[in-house]
Amino acid sequence: MTRIVTVGAAQLGPVQRDDDRRAVVDRLRVMLADAASQGCDLVVFPELALTTFFPRWYVDDITQADHFYETSMPNDATQPLFDEARDLEIGFCLGYALLETADDGSTHRWNVQTLVERDGSIVGTFKKVHIPGHESNEPGRPFQHLERYYFEPSPEGFGVWDAFGGRVGMMICNDRRWPESYRLMGLQGVELILCGYNTPLHYAPDPSQDPLQGFHNQLVMSSGAYQNGTFVVGVAKGGVEEGVDSLAESSIFGPSGELLARATTNDDELIVAECDLDWCGQYKNTLFDFARYRRPDVYGPLTAPPSN
Amino acid sequence: MTRIVTVGAAQLGPVQRDDDRRAVVDRLRVMLADAASQGCDLVVFPELALTTFFPRWYVDDITQADHFYETSMPNDATQPLFDEARDLEIGFCLGYALLETADDGSTHRWNVQTLVERDGSIVGTFKKVHIPGHESNEPGRPFQHLERYYFEPSPEGFGVWDAFGGRVGMMICNDRRWPESYRLMGLQGVELILCGYNTPLHYAPDPSQDPLQGFHNQLVMSSGAYQNGTFVVGVAKGGVEEGVDSLAESSIFGPSGELLARATTNDDELIVAECDLDWCGQYKNTLFDFARYRRPDVYGPLTAPPSN
Repeated sequence: MTRIVTVGAAQLGPVQRDDDRRAVVDRLRVMLADAASQGCDLVVFPELALTTFFPRWYVDDITQADHFYETSMPNDATQPLFDEARDLEIGFCLGYALLETADDGSTHRWNVQTLVERDGSIVGTFKKVHIPGHESNEPGRPFQHLERYYFEPSPEGFGVWDAFGGRVGMMICNDRRWPESYRLMGLQGVELILCGYNTPLHYAPDPSQDPLQGFHNQLVMSSGAYQNGTFVVGVAKGGVEEGVDSLAESSIFGPSGELLARATTNDDELIVAECDLDWCGQYKNTLFDFARYRRPDVYGPLTAPPSN
Repeated sequence: MTRIVTVGAAQLGPVQRDDDRRAVVDRLRVMLADAASQGCDLVVFPELALTTFFPRWYVDDITQADHFYETSMPNDATQPLFDEARDLEIGFCLGYALLETADDGSTHRWNVQTLVERDGSIVGTFKKVHIPGHESNEPGRPFQHLERYYFEPSPEGFGVWDAFGGRVGMMICNDRRWPESYRLMGLQGVELILCGYNTPLHYAPDPSQDPLQGFHNQLVMSSGAYQNGTFVVGVAKGGVEEGVDSLAESSIFGPSGELLARATTNDDELIVAECDLDWCGQYKNTLFDFARYRRPDVYGPLTAPPSN
């Protein structure tokens, strides 16, 4: 028996500040149709796919950035994408900023990915857990990385959904650097992890890491895949966006940790891999049989609050 | 300021069943002297360095294998190693099987590594946490991997010690495949992790992993190093031992995850790296500032007992 899910990673080149959502959605639809023609069941778009990576700018009044957020999904701008996907019977995963008004009237800003099944139904929406960067304007940087200003960290952690014939999880960008992200999904039997990212090549707090961005990107996704016996699909918004060069190198890894496909440009580019989800069992049921081999009795400090 | 620790990974070729401990200790002393002549502060020997990897055989009565265990450290056979190290003012880390009689008269069998400072004092003894393989004889295998018969899992978890001017931790073989091992030490500020291993190239439960042994070995140590901002020293007993071929590829990784040195043979071979422990801070104080960026509030399932 095989459970093949053909997955497309739809890397995007830059989205500039003046690009409107309809123009971006048109690009997504081109890639969606391309993926359908290549037999994909699922297409994964990057983090914050609908807009430029706006945390690179500071605004005194955060509501001045509210136009970068969606307030519902689908909405007028994205409905054509939902319609076309349903017509093509292809699922997708879309990253965007979400402005949410809670029942108590409070406002919340999240960095999210929504997973949509082949029939157009929404499977789930994941909120980013590990928010990198800084909280306050740091004018000395060549550009800001104000995700901790613009986004709350998810209080929900990492879920896994039954979709596409398997167990599917999501994470966003910096989540992929933390082994806890993969493991929390691995403990729920994840077989396919979908991860969009925007990764500037320059890291101001330690520029010695700049030339290693591609190496680190591959390292964390490959090891997370292997150590949890899962496919991992990493999808970039790459290239020079508003003067900031970001890592491309969208990649798909198998549960062995092996690289199955990688983008070769830093622009709109679709890469495809046939993912046999039954491969995961070769790791989950042997070397990484968690129930047999993990040692949660000595893992206590992993969940302790920071001592400072 | 720099805090350089020059570390030697003293890979061993096979130790056959009939090799007595004194002959093995003579090999270790040769490598110790070589390391001293190359300016090493610390030499790391592999897992179960003093004997053959005896879990490959089953004995009905486990006490028939007791001659493979040490009952004290140092002992008559290893005292010359301790003496020579103290004379050379070089520290070492030694893996061996330990048979311990507790205060209540009960007997315990551990797979351990002992760390010795440059003045000959014992820093600490680590007991292996993640015991791989199987509990019962499985005659259908070409060779056994009965670690779960011969060794109890450590109830103590992963410690970190102040030694060699830094924060030093230990793990053994299969521990290196589990991100929890590195993280539990990372949370204690580890800067240098010492890991001996014996890794047969053939993995009976899933031979598709056989050609990937070297890739997986590098992947887990490199990612564990990067994700915790620590040096990792992996040291093999490699080559064909009693008919079983084992991975060599002893390696030293920096806190960037980069490979600093790797053995090129599968026999006795010393590799050396100058480890500036201050490099660790470039990761621990930025991208992987745990107190700032980890999310233990959503990590609860990591420590939950298996549900089955």
